[in-house]
Amino acid sequence: MNIITISREFGSGGREVGKRIADILGYAYYDREIITAIAEKHDFNENYVESMLENGFSFCMPITYGRTFSYSDVGGQQAIQLLSTQCRMLREIASKGNCVIVGRSANIILEDMNPLNIFVHADIESKLRRCRERAPENENLKDSELRRKIKQIDSNRAKHQRFLSEKKWGDKEGYHLCVNTSGADIKAISSIIAEYAKGYFESK
Amino acid sequence: MNIITISREFGSGGREVGKRIADILGYAYYDREIITAIAEKHDFNENYVESMLENGFSFCMPITYGRTFSYSDVGGQQAIQLLSTQCRMLREIASKGNCVIVGRSANIILEDMNPLNIFVHADIESKLRRCRERAPENENLKDSELRRKIKQIDSNRAKHQRFLSEKKWGDKEGYHLCVNTSGADIKAISSIIAEYAKGYFESK
Repeated sequence: MNIITISREFGSGGREVGKRIADILGYAYYDREIITAIAEKHDFNENYVESMLENGFSFCMPITYGRTFSYSDVGGQQAIQLLSTQCRMLREIASKGNCVIVGRSANIILEDMNPLNIFVHADIESKLRRCRERAPENENLKDSELRRKIKQIDSNRAKHQRFLSEKKWGDKEGYHLCVNTSGADIKAISSIIAEYAKGYFESK
Repeated sequence: MNIITISREFGSGGREVGKRIADILGYAYYDREIITAIAEKHDFNENYVESMLENGFSFCMPITYGRTFSYSDVGGQQAIQLLSTQCRMLREIASKGNCVIVGRSANIILEDMNPLNIFVHADIESKLRRCRERAPENENLKDSELRRKIKQIDSNRAKHQRFLSEKKWGDKEGYHLCVNTSGADIKAISSIIAEYAKGYFESK
């Protein structure tokens, strides 16, 4: 089974890269679908699930009392239940066939299934530009607000991974390949990465 | 002109990757040749030049007196002269034709010539293994000594770059691609990176 995980900085184009790679290689593609499935399973609203998985961990770090430990509140416990469902679903998905999974800490959760782990990043100017181009019409954030938003989302992603692993989110050591999309054409770079992935799996 | 620079952690196989990429793409390859040329130009011993360029900077950080600044000693000044020759030579080489340059901070020195900058790294176990396989017969370093040697060489490389740029050596932000060779077959991974480079230059 060839599994590609894409972790990415917000605004770097990682999601588009993932989608394009999946199209080129004819692999299944998972991103938001996982949230939808978890929401259905727990009968929650999708946005709630997404927000719990991305922010819930900020208040559910384990607290140690002597030899036992617990989580700080009910919200935290719910986040853990959702995470556990997410783990199960990711493993199910990954065992079905070749796939590209964007986000969801799949690089960590599927570690024992030997995925090709790619991290997509870009400099802040490229990310601001990309976010502006893709912002909904009613979003009128100032540059400083947009910078803060980008930083906040990435910081949540990093926190999420810290909960699951000692490997630091975004540290090149945790990935097979880190790709800088600053000033790059996402379409062209995706074909190149797809070729890279093909070569990688052939050489295994 | 297609220029590929390879920066690498000691023992990660970066030099072999560079050589193989150059062979596959039919590009000129530069590594130790640059040291030889600098040594000839200054009528110094090659090992002295190499050591000055790698270690000389540890004692030639600029010291500021009020509004002027100077370097701490003669050794430092010599290192700077050698660096200046290295800069000129790198620019000469790079303007001659397509090439792969390993090390020598070429990623920084040739920044304005838009090279494809690749960083090659690996986990410590892979690096120890590779160093052991390639060590001269009379080198019998203990594991702890070899670890220290690897750390020291990389720390000198980082220092060298710190002298030239604000970009931190090994930070993924400063490279187009960071490749992890842990457990990888260097020959196979080099072909994949060569394909990547080909695609990169075609898309420019």
